[in-house]
Amino acid sequence: MEFSSKLLENAVSEMSQLPGIGKRTALRLVLHMLRQPKEQTNTLSQALVQMRTNIKFCKSCNNISDVDICEICANPNRDKSIICVVEDVRDVMAIENTSFFKGHYHVLGGKISPIDGIGPHDLNINSLVEKVKSGDVSEIIFALSSTMEGDTTNFYIFKQIQDYNITTSTIARGISIGDELEYTDEVTLGRSIVNRVPFESSLKL
Amino acid sequence: MEFSSKLLENAVSEMSQLPGIGKRTALRLVLHMLRQPKEQTNTLSQALVQMRTNIKFCKSCNNISDVDICEICANPNRDKSIICVVEDVRDVMAIENTSFFKGHYHVLGGKISPIDGIGPHDLNINSLVEKVKSGDVSEIIFALSSTMEGDTTNFYIFKQIQDYNITTSTIARGISIGDELEYTDEVTLGRSIVNRVPFESSLKL
Repeated sequence: MEFSSKLLENAVSEMSQLPGIGKRTALRLVLHMLRQPKEQTNTLSQALVQMRTNIKFCKSCNNISDVDICEICANPNRDKSIICVVEDVRDVMAIENTSFFKGHYHVLGGKISPIDGIGPHDLNINSLVEKVKSGDVSEIIFALSSTMEGDTTNFYIFKQIQDYNITTSTIARGISIGDELEYTDEVTLGRSIVNRVPFESSLKL
Repeated sequence: MEFSSKLLENAVSEMSQLPGIGKRTALRLVLHMLRQPKEQTNTLSQALVQMRTNIKFCKSCNNISDVDICEICANPNRDKSIICVVEDVRDVMAIENTSFFKGHYHVLGGKISPIDGIGPHDLNINSLVEKVKSGDVSEIIFALSSTMEGDTTNFYIFKQIQDYNITTSTIARGISIGDELEYTDEVTLGRSIVNRVPFESSLKL
């Protein structure tokens, strides 16, 4: 791509560093900014820089927060003895949206993935093990995505905490509400039969 | 979407102002920035602000440029009597990539589109008419996209310049190189038959 302006080329090249944004999309976005008032680009840039510079991670659960201890961890009405282990802040937001969970979270910041060079020490696993050692925890719920990396990470953490007397569970895998049985993959369908639940308990939700 | 941080929410909301970027994509992009070094976000923001603040539009053709007269208009080897009328800078880049055109451009900055509130006076049409009036132009090539808005814009400009003694042409519409005939829409196929070209001339390219 030949640009008629160095400034334009720079902006496009920086935008296209973002995941899923190629050169063409970046150019489209940058040209859109040129059609909007200058203030809009300034506001966007300031929002990004301020976010990147000032954002904090909760000292307890590692969730993104503006303060040292996030709202969830600071809430006295939530049960801190149940910890839901998730990959990143989007999972916290997704589970919070359901309003079915009233415990604490622990955000790992990723999954063990040797192919991407992410080992256990790049994740917030130690602080989770420390929490378990402290004796305040009664249950750990694994809520990582059901992939090779997710399963590896679950198993690694399980090995670290299995000697402490706590319950470990993993979120249920099964057929999504509203899905047709015939289109479900066989692994999911098979597991949903093996892990069937008493009919009465399904009526409660 | 409930955010655990105001800074994060701000950044996501600003990013999602961009066309084609929804809240979820914006969140994904912003979380990616958080995993990268701070400098990267700073560089991106600076590139955007500098581009938006300092970019110029060529005083002759309205193409994006870092100087008052763009490289194409300033190039003495290009024929300034032939002007190719395009919608925006992406079209200039696309035509330049073919290296088939050695004239000048005129960037309108959009198409006449009443539904989006864009009238003739929002586009750089007057300066094109002035160029034609000055008598230096021998041919105008319309290279707008083949839509209702593109056709309207072509026709509006044609009406303004038809009394001056210049050639007007429009880029050829037809079947793309490599396309199968049977999958081509009937309007394109019909036009490609009506506007057939002598076989010998197709051999020259």
